[in-house]
Amino acid sequence: MKLRIIVTLKNGVLDPQGKAIQHALSGLGFDGVHDVRAGKLFELEVADDTSDAAIDEMCRKLLANTVIENYRVERA
Amino acid sequence: MKLRIIVTLKNGVLDPQGKAIQHALSGLGFDGVHDVRAGKLFELEVADDTSDAAIDEMCRKLLANTVIENYRVERA
Repeated sequence: MKLRIIVTLKNGVLDPQGKAIQHALSGLGFDGVHDVRAGKLFELEVADDTSDAAIDEMCRKLLANTVIENYRVERA
Repeated sequence: MKLRIIVTLKNGVLDPQGKAIQHALSGLGFDGVHDVRAGKLFELEVADDTSDAAIDEMCRKLLANTVIENYRVERA
């Protein structure tokens, strides 16, 4: 089973990487970029019998820092 | 207009970060994780009249290294 786990910073958490990208895009002449947020993506190939609870635990224990990040699991 | 740009390593490119995550998951007792690939995600808020060509150029010039990475643009 293929999973796509998307980890993004929570709203209100400063994102200096995103700000740097936005600034760089503007420097390259791309106008109209109002906001950039940088996140992480993990593509996992797991056994078909992996439970939702186990997937959730992987995210909370390792893949995302739930103090400042949200995560979302998508099945591909 | 909200865009989600997903940058992943091309097939065949070694992914030490993914391998480290896979190893760590196994160390935490999660069996059945066959593969992990790590990627990047950028959420952009751009002007509604931004052309597809401009978005593509942003990806090729700054967001992705097309020698080793693929990118995909999703409209949210």
